[in-house]
Amino acid sequence: MSPDFQTHLSHTVSAVDAELDRLLTTKINVGEIQRPANLIAAMRYGVLNGGKRLRPFLIIEVASLFGASLTETLQCGCALECLHSYSLIHDDLPAMDNDDLRRGKPTVHKAFDEAIAVLAGDALLTVAFDILSSPECHPSADVRCELVSLLSRAAGQGGMIGGQVQDIEAETSTPNADEIRRLQSMKTGALIRFACEAGAILGNAPDKHRAQMVEFGKTIGLAFQLSDDLLDVTSSSAKMGKRVGKDAEQGKGTLVRLYGVEKTRALLNNSLAHAEALLEPFGKKANILRQTAKFVVERSN
Amino acid sequence: MSPDFQTHLSHTVSAVDAELDRLLTTKINVGEIQRPANLIAAMRYGVLNGGKRLRPFLIIEVASLFGASLTETLQCGCALECLHSYSLIHDDLPAMDNDDLRRGKPTVHKAFDEAIAVLAGDALLTVAFDILSSPECHPSADVRCELVSLLSRAAGQGGMIGGQVQDIEAETSTPNADEIRRLQSMKTGALIRFACEAGAILGNAPDKHRAQMVEFGKTIGLAFQLSDDLLDVTSSSAKMGKRVGKDAEQGKGTLVRLYGVEKTRALLNNSLAHAEALLEPFGKKANILRQTAKFVVERSN
Repeated sequence: MSPDFQTHLSHTVSAVDAELDRLLTTKINVGEIQRPANLIAAMRYGVLNGGKRLRPFLIIEVASLFGASLTETLQCGCALECLHSYSLIHDDLPAMDNDDLRRGKPTVHKAFDEAIAVLAGDALLTVAFDILSSPECHPSADVRCELVSLLSRAAGQGGMIGGQVQDIEAETSTPNADEIRRLQSMKTGALIRFACEAGAILGNAPDKHRAQMVEFGKTIGLAFQLSDDLLDVTSSSAKMGKRVGKDAEQGKGTLVRLYGVEKTRALLNNSLAHAEALLEPFGKKANILRQTAKFVVERSN
Repeated sequence: MSPDFQTHLSHTVSAVDAELDRLLTTKINVGEIQRPANLIAAMRYGVLNGGKRLRPFLIIEVASLFGASLTETLQCGCALECLHSYSLIHDDLPAMDNDDLRRGKPTVHKAFDEAIAVLAGDALLTVAFDILSSPECHPSADVRCELVSLLSRAAGQGGMIGGQVQDIEAETSTPNADEIRRLQSMKTGALIRFACEAGAILGNAPDKHRAQMVEFGKTIGLAFQLSDDLLDVTSSSAKMGKRVGKDAEQGKGTLVRLYGVEKTRALLNNSLAHAEALLEPFGKKANILRQTAKFVVERSN
């Protein structure tokens, strides 16, 4: 990774973590009654956990391509990170993936208990829409409503949650390549695509560029899932900070199982080339996004 | 109950159920990829279950007091009912109240499984914000954003979910009357208050009237919880369609346990008198809301 990319990424991590730290406290907002300390502790534990903040980073970097500043995009980034974190907390539950470890630490239902894990997830999903609908997120209510609508669809029954259901169903069926791609585009891809589209919206990008950013998001979303599947086969628990090898163990249909490691690597490289082609018209300004695509393809955890 | 009230209520039930039936299908919206049939089936099972639709009814009747029509309020009502239904599905989970029965039928995790129950709840919470942010809900994006913000706060960490956490904590502590009132104002009251405030917003009520509707919502919210606690002591499972007597069994702090049945009935009657006083300025126009307050106090299931 280039030092430039590293600087941008760690700057985003600091900014997002500081803002999440400020948002998620027991201090109430107008319209709230009381925030129980234990619930807030579980929410913070699930969010402020050393995450890479890739999704907020994509929002911020895409918006910056069109001239929007960090201040103008940070709230949307935090909303998306709350939503992403909720999905991990619920995915880890005993009734779902039953994972004890996440980023090298006990999962929320292990560190607290199962009821609090369900409720902390629910609260993080809910607060994402509070953050998005607040005037601090964007001065125009039309823009805020569009973001709420897009995120609810990316995260809901026809996006991330729907993909999670298909992923569970895939444990007892044998999905073909198209079905695996679709479920991955829902389970992982939808939020990454949202990040890129939200960045274009916050940067007030023209329609044509917005469509290109959506396509860029789709492309690196697929790449992200492919590299995740590869890492599940080739990496170690120590490096990943979570249980690996579980796809095969759970009989999950992944493209790696269907195609093998070599062909999957080739697909990943194709995705990278496609992502780079989409950034071509933006010249040097898109350097950080280029490196982000490379990072997604080549990441080791 | 007066025939007039019954007619209005059953009209709302029909309209809300028909609209939820239209919204919750496998047909995708713009921005969605695919809605898995099993997920949609679980969502529908959890929502289209003969519910009283009290919360949408409050939105519709309060808005109607200020001249807004059913068409102008139905979407908001459906959003709130989706959110309310998600809270019941998650409350019933084994890690939470562990209930097998809801409105006389197996709970969602019994009829489907636990993973689907978690995800169907998540999806109903998510789709509530999709419905609220859609132009069909209200032509003004400012109004839609305000509704999203209010609902997320009523339902989130400082409202309903926070109240659920306090309710769990109350099983192992001995909350005093103020603490019980506060947790009930969060767990049950917040959504009922939201319904009344949303009705005032959709009816474009002046600030003074909006504040009165918020107070009306707070009052009948408390009354609703008091009558629920009473019914848990005095009713039967057959009548309620769910397990009763569980508050005492779980050692839950309720005002009935603290005050006894008679004093609780007196508190309920005080609430009714306060609710009626708040409706006084609206004269005959508020007859249905008067009967709604009475219904909440005197309901037998």
